[in-house]
Amino acid sequence: MQVDLNADMGESFGPWRMGDDDALLKIITSANIACGFHAGDADVMANTMRLAAANDVGIGAHPGFADLQGFGRRRIRLSTEELGNMVAYQLGAAQGMARLAGGRVRHLKLHGAVANMASEDAAIARACYAAALKVDPDIILVTLAATASEATARDLGAAYANEIFADRAYNDDATLVDRSQPGAVLHDPGVAGLRMEQMIRAGGIVTQSGKTIPCRIDTICVHGDSPDAVAMAGAVRNHLQGAGITLRQFPGQRA
Amino acid sequence: MQVDLNADMGESFGPWRMGDDDALLKIITSANIACGFHAGDADVMANTMRLAAANDVGIGAHPGFADLQGFGRRRIRLSTEELGNMVAYQLGAAQGMARLAGGRVRHLKLHGAVANMASEDAAIARACYAAALKVDPDIILVTLAATASEATARDLGAAYANEIFADRAYNDDATLVDRSQPGAVLHDPGVAGLRMEQMIRAGGIVTQSGKTIPCRIDTICVHGDSPDAVAMAGAVRNHLQGAGITLRQFPGQRA
Amino acid sequence: MQVDLNADMGESFGPWRMGDDDALLKIITSANIACGFHAGDADVMANTMRLAAANDVGIGAHPGFADLQGFGRRRIRLSTEELGNMVAYQLGAAQGMARLAGGRVRHLKLHGAVANMASEDAAIARACYAAALKVDPDIILVTLAATASEATARDLGAAYANEIFADRAYNDDATLVDRSQPGAVLHDPGVAGLRMEQMIRAGGIVTQSGKTIPCRIDTICVHGDSPDAVAMAGAVRNHLQGAGITLRQFPGQRA
Amino acid sequence: MQVDLNADMGESFGPWRMGDDDALLKIITSANIACGFHAGDADVMANTMRLAAANDVGIGAHPGFADLQGFGRRRIRLSTEELGNMVAYQLGAAQGMARLAGGRVRHLKLHGAVANMASEDAAIARACYAAALKVDPDIILVTLAATASEATARDLGAAYANEIFADRAYNDDATLVDRSQPGAVLHDPGVAGLRMEQMIRAGGIVTQSGKTIPCRIDTICVHGDSPDAVAMAGAVRNHLQGAGITLRQFPGQRA
Repeated sequence: MQVDLNADMGESFGPWRMGDDDALLKIITSANIACGFHAGDADVMANTMRLAAANDVGIGAHPGFADLQGFGRRRIRLSTEELGNMVAYQLGAAQGMARLAGGRVRHLKLHGAVANMASEDAAIARACYAAALKVDPDIILVTLAATASEATARDLGAAYANEIFADRAYNDDATLVDRSQPGAVLHDPGVAGLRMEQMIRAGGIVTQSGKTIPCRIDTICVHGDSPDAVAMAGAVRNHLQGAGITLRQFPGQRA
Repeated sequence: MQVDLNADMGESFGPWRMGDDDALLKIITSANIACGFHAGDADVMANTMRLAAANDVGIGAHPGFADLQGFGRRRIRLSTEELGNMVAYQLGAAQGMARLAGGRVRHLKLHGAVANMASEDAAIARACYAAALKVDPDIILVTLAATASEATARDLGAAYANEIFADRAYNDDATLVDRSQPGAVLHDPGVAGLRMEQMIRAGGIVTQSGKTIPCRIDTICVHGDSPDAVAMAGAVRNHLQGAGITLRQFPGQRA
Repeated sequence: MQVDLNADMGESFGPWRMGDDDALLKIITSANIACGFHAGDADVMANTMRLAAANDVGIGAHPGFADLQGFGRRRIRLSTEELGNMVAYQLGAAQGMARLAGGRVRHLKLHGAVANMASEDAAIARACYAAALKVDPDIILVTLAATASEATARDLGAAYANEIFADRAYNDDATLVDRSQPGAVLHDPGVAGLRMEQMIRAGGIVTQSGKTIPCRIDTICVHGDSPDAVAMAGAVRNHLQGAGITLRQFPGQRA
Repeated sequence: MQVDLNADMGESFGPWRMGDDDALLKIITSANIACGFHAGDADVMANTMRLAAANDVGIGAHPGFADLQGFGRRRIRLSTEELGNMVAYQLGAAQGMARLAGGRVRHLKLHGAVANMASEDAAIARACYAAALKVDPDIILVTLAATASEATARDLGAAYANEIFADRAYNDDATLVDRSQPGAVLHDPGVAGLRMEQMIRAGGIVTQSGKTIPCRIDTICVHGDSPDAVAMAGAVRNHLQGAGITLRQFPGQRA
């Protein structure tokens, strides 16, 4: 049994720092690196990619809406053609920066609002993913397990990696429990690690109600935006290793 | 005898149009396409690259300073590392958009202030070109003939194409005559075409004073920002063809 | 009988031109000047305000979403507090530029997507208008006649000017007929002028079906983005003057 | 004897935090608030201005170059007209946000590269200050003591406040000792407080060599970008109060 740990990185911009990338790179196996539209700039990308390469962490493009102030978290209605162009541009830029850093872009994960929209609406997922696949037919798409984004990756015949969240509870339809609800966000690192082990052994998402939604589980998303978050990520890693689950970059299987 | 005709294209942005790209693509053989920092956006890039590919015009990345309001014409002091990152990002983005459009980026030409800075200062040229070559070792660098940018491309062992201007007079040190001086800008299409033929036959830049500066001449820069400019570009093309000079994409020789 | 003619202006940005402001300033009585978020920049604003002042045209702030590429036409979900801040910032900037140009900001009209949202949703209108009134309690709000934006201006006790469109047909609920429907957009300048006279004499919007929706009509919106548009604006002006209706800046009555 | 303490504030942007504004507002008497071009956004400005007003700290506009990535620290060559427009826009925006927050803008201090340029070149200082004075003839200009910016404020007959730095050593020509030199930056809070007292009692800048450059000293610049910086600011405040010097907003005298 094996799984990947991924985290968003390279979210600093100009003079502003965000996240503890150095600490996370010791924990995770895949890094989703912001591409300059919602966070990151060419200098931050260069540094982050060099660090990822030096730590043998898989490099991923992490495109989002062109909205620095809103950090790519505000929904913006674009046509499918505009969405594809937006993704192709950022993926290309990430590839350029990776080559400059002596690495290569292995995967792509959508960020923030556009990721949420793609998990709800297959037309949006298809616009983004089809463009990414034209830029690199072998790119591994990181998809939200059991949502429209996974279904779309499968339909496109793409290599993909299904993602679950270490610290979030799930509804029975595979959506996340709203943050306003009790138990929506897990704060106990021990509980989070155990729950991840459970889901991997169960071969699917275990929901808040106890139901199992069978699906591939290829990667676990952790965060690094606070000391607590880094501790949580480390605890999940340690728990999984202790349970005999190998931490390794996702292979990117096709359906 | 052969030469290439190049022009800056894809300089629209969002709702704003600039230049007559359709007309120019019937005249030129290589297009320098803005990469979203000083002009262009992902949508404009996608359209321009598709048009260039459809017209068998060579696709080039045209990176500039991140300064939409100033159109990349204002000098900004960046470190050599920042310059390299800026170029790698834009070249990568252009490659992504070209793949989406079914084409590929064949050359790179710096835009505006950073192009001028690179023609004056070999350290700046080296920062930009070395980064571009890491992203693509076979990229053809379009350099200002007989300046620091040509010397740097040669020193780096890069494939390059030397450029002269159809409508500008030259000083004896290969710099352009300042626009404030009489005769600095040529407005007569017939004169421009004849002068280009002269330089190609002379094997170098013929200056305002009549001196010849020997150098490779691989490509001629024309403009498309007004009906007069398009007429000038067409007249130069017609004159050269009438004089038995083949118009063809530059091969990108190394020194 | 009197009415005002307003148009959006100052929509150039950096090197890009948009609209024929010079021609329109001879026709209109109030100018809605972009504030740098969706179009315009400090230099364009300075020039436009000087021109407006020189032509005795009323100066208005025309705030929109911070989205140059989308020209403020894409809906972005902001909190009511963020909307208020966005409007206050742009109104303040416009006041600063007007004072620099020797004029003053007399009115405020929302642009594009945020204007549409405010005409549909009183909470959005209130967020924008309440902020504007804190910046200047005497600012005249240009509202879409018989929509939530007018109702909100009235509820706030603000001075306002109700607007109708010269070239658009109306549904019976005072919304605009969708552009995809036949007759939605009027192209005949003679018809447009006559229709405006009709509505002013009828004291309300005359809809496509012939119904009259009684409302104050304080200003007519015309466009200047093409030679046809300028001709239309001039024809509307000429027709109204010929019909004995005085063209004059709206007084900005409270309800 | 009295003096003002000022600090740059409101330098967060979107999701990114910078500085400890809450702590500094308990220490300083005047706040220079970023205006959205090099840092700050409308939401950050609204919050910062409300906090400043609640703490009876004087509100200042702190305009800089439109360069978020470079934090306004990179020199950009603008025409004098463009500089004036840039300052007027940001001052107006700040006034709008201050009115929204129930306060008013009392002073203006240039930020970063444009501040340095204005201290070296009276034409640049004049372009910026003349525009600010058109927007508000009573605005108090915070000038670098004994530089071109002070001379220009005096020539313009403007109210101004002369500034010295708590933690920087001075050359004999009133410029700052370059950061690469030993002793250029003071790290000992006790020394900094004593040195400020000395200068105030001496009626001028005391340079590294011991020379006194007579000048008005109206305000002392402190920083808040680290816990050490906040401690330094507090120590300077405590020392001056212990020495019987009143901390109070600068009056803004004319020459």
